[in-house]
Amino acid sequence: MKVALLVAYDGTDFHGFARQRTARTVQGVLEEALSMVLREPIELTCAGRTDAGVHASGQVVSFEAPEVEPERLQRRVNRLLAPEVSVRGAARASDSFDARFSARRRSYEYRCYRAAAPDPFLDRFALHLPGEVSVRAMRAGARALVGEHDFSAFCRKGQGSLVRRVRSITIVSAAESLTFKLTADSFCHQMVRSIIGLLLDVGRGKRGPESVAAALGRKDRGAAGNVAPARALHLTRVLYRPDPFQPF
Amino acid sequence: MKVALLVAYDGTDFHGFARQRTARTVQGVLEEALSMVLREPIELTCAGRTDAGVHASGQVVSFEAPEVEPERLQRRVNRLLAPEVSVRGAARASDSFDARFSARRRSYEYRCYRAAAPDPFLDRFALHLPGEVSVRAMRAGARALVGEHDFSAFCRKGQGSLVRRVRSITIVSAAESLTFKLTADSFCHQMVRSIIGLLLDVGRGKRGPESVAAALGRKDRGAAGNVAPARALHLTRVLYRPDPFQPF
Repeated sequence: MKVALLVAYDGTDFHGFARQRTARTVQGVLEEALSMVLREPIELTCAGRTDAGVHASGQVVSFEAPEVEPERLQRRVNRLLAPEVSVRGAARASDSFDARFSARRRSYEYRCYRAAAPDPFLDRFALHLPGEVSVRAMRAGARALVGEHDFSAFCRKGQGSLVRRVRSITIVSAAESLTFKLTADSFCHQMVRSIIGLLLDVGRGKRGPESVAAALGRKDRGAAGNVAPARALHLTRVLYRPDPFQPF
Repeated sequence: MKVALLVAYDGTDFHGFARQRTARTVQGVLEEALSMVLREPIELTCAGRTDAGVHASGQVVSFEAPEVEPERLQRRVNRLLAPEVSVRGAARASDSFDARFSARRRSYEYRCYRAAAPDPFLDRFALHLPGEVSVRAMRAGARALVGEHDFSAFCRKGQGSLVRRVRSITIVSAAESLTFKLTADSFCHQMVRSIIGLLLDVGRGKRGPESVAAALGRKDRGAAGNVAPARALHLTRVLYRPDPFQPF
């Protein structure tokens, strides 16, 4: 049977999601736990291969497994891995379901907190942003990124096209926090953190809002500038139709 | 001059507040940082000597220091220690001020979260409380503790009296969280966690509400039962009159 899991993790002490031979990764510990519980080697696919230090509240993985009750699997995996990695939902999915290829949209949040002094209870999962930033300027800059574009300026060179379709970028500004919410069909490597790095430069007045469109147009990795720190980035939601966790 | 600091810390990786010869403690790293910045050995006193793993958002420390601008001291210490230990406020205090002996009240919070699965983003600072608990029973039990009592049943034996005056115990119950708020003139060692351990037993129906008054009356450490885990306990506020951080 095909199983889908909705997974949250604190990425701090992992070398990213994707399995590596020597380093501790989320995929590594998950596959190990699943293989132990299911008594056969499990190989999974995921919706978003998050980088080292990046967190997830809504990662989705899928895999072929022997017949099993999903809730029981969830409990047994959580007994091995939670709270660092926690299975929030487990469901039988259709045979054709694949966490990566069935995903229609991925949503990430980049979380900042405003406070005069660093906060020990927020800093593990968010970026300290003291001082003023112009939300208006960041929104103006971000507008250029929405739609289908070649994101070469914002991505690590990889194999294949770097054309992606960004559906929305919203910036939620509150008294004590500032949150960037990005949704795209898919993202390429380091794309979100590169976008945030540039937008934060714009917000701080180091660059004008027009520099975002300019960077995009140059299609050159050097144009975008700094990559924002990993610890404030969260994979929050993956959209499927139908949603394997909300059967109807 | 006498300096008072309002300090927050993530207690996870400390062997408690109080200085120890070989283990890493909050007092140890704070005194080291202050001594470095102020270029003379600093010895501080604190309002609450929190145990290993216990956090603080409102710890207060005080010490004698050479003439210094408090805000500058705050910035320099934070550059060394934040975000794990963060100075939230710094003020010149009256010569007679002592973080320990001037304190009128200490307030602690014990934070629980309700969710079907453990949450990697809450679990570092709160206790996972799946399943039902009776808030009504816990409130009924807690009532016996308010006022001046001999808390021998809830404290590690130490030197001196274990009579303490508890001003209030409130339990704030919300859909996703359950928070115990305790205020006393002062607490003895492990008193809050022992109280919470017993109240959680009452909430889960393992004991009746009347067992709290019974344990108090027996004045015997064995009567209270388990000590609740440290990681959900926070020293949130210390009351002084006048408040050194809100001069008028």
